[in-house]
Amino acid sequence: MNNNKPYYAVIFTSTRTIGDNGYGAMATLMEDLAKKQTGFLGIESAREAIGITVSYWESLEAIASWKRDTGHKIAQQKGRTDWYTWYKVRICKVEREYEFTP
Amino acid sequence: MNNNKPYYAVIFTSTRTIGDNGYGAMATLMEDLAKKQTGFLGIESAREAIGITVSYWESLEAIASWKRDTGHKIAQQKGRTDWYTWYKVRICKVEREYEFTP
Repeated sequence: MNNNKPYYAVIFTSTRTIGDNGYGAMATLMEDLAKKQTGFLGIESAREAIGITVSYWESLEAIASWKRDTGHKIAQQKGRTDWYTWYKVRICKVEREYEFTP
Repeated sequence: MNNNKPYYAVIFTSTRTIGDNGYGAMATLMEDLAKKQTGFLGIESAREAIGITVSYWESLEAIASWKRDTGHKIAQQKGRTDWYTWYKVRICKVEREYEFTP
């Protein structure tokens, strides 16, 4: 992600239902599956009161293709029925970036 | 953030040094200060192995102005010397969004 080519970020923010209900296993599976997609660049996650997952992609086409993935579609459906009380997805173009490494 | 006007997200990802060293108090202060800036729209944070804070802004000018804020500049400096072992800032344009509320 340190080249000068434009790329995209998907910001996924969510609040969870109570209990695991298979969420942990599916989250790991989805992360592994995302990493295998064409155009995938990286993923970062943290959860406290709110969960934030940001995934990075080469193009809007790569993001659209991942959204349509069959395994991912099953997870999306389970997300709405079992795992999330709320979520929001934002598709963003990374315009500029800088980094601190001591 | 639910209107149709384009807006911007700043994705701040970081790893922390060990110990608080005044970080918690300053983080709260910076969040309060950010909320008072012109063009501020919202902020979301979570930290596990990595910390992710996403703030939302009306314009690139609002983001640049917040970066130059005097109080924020002091915090940025302390961030590099005391609080973070690494951070990365990405300035993004939100191109599209959708939400799930059951």
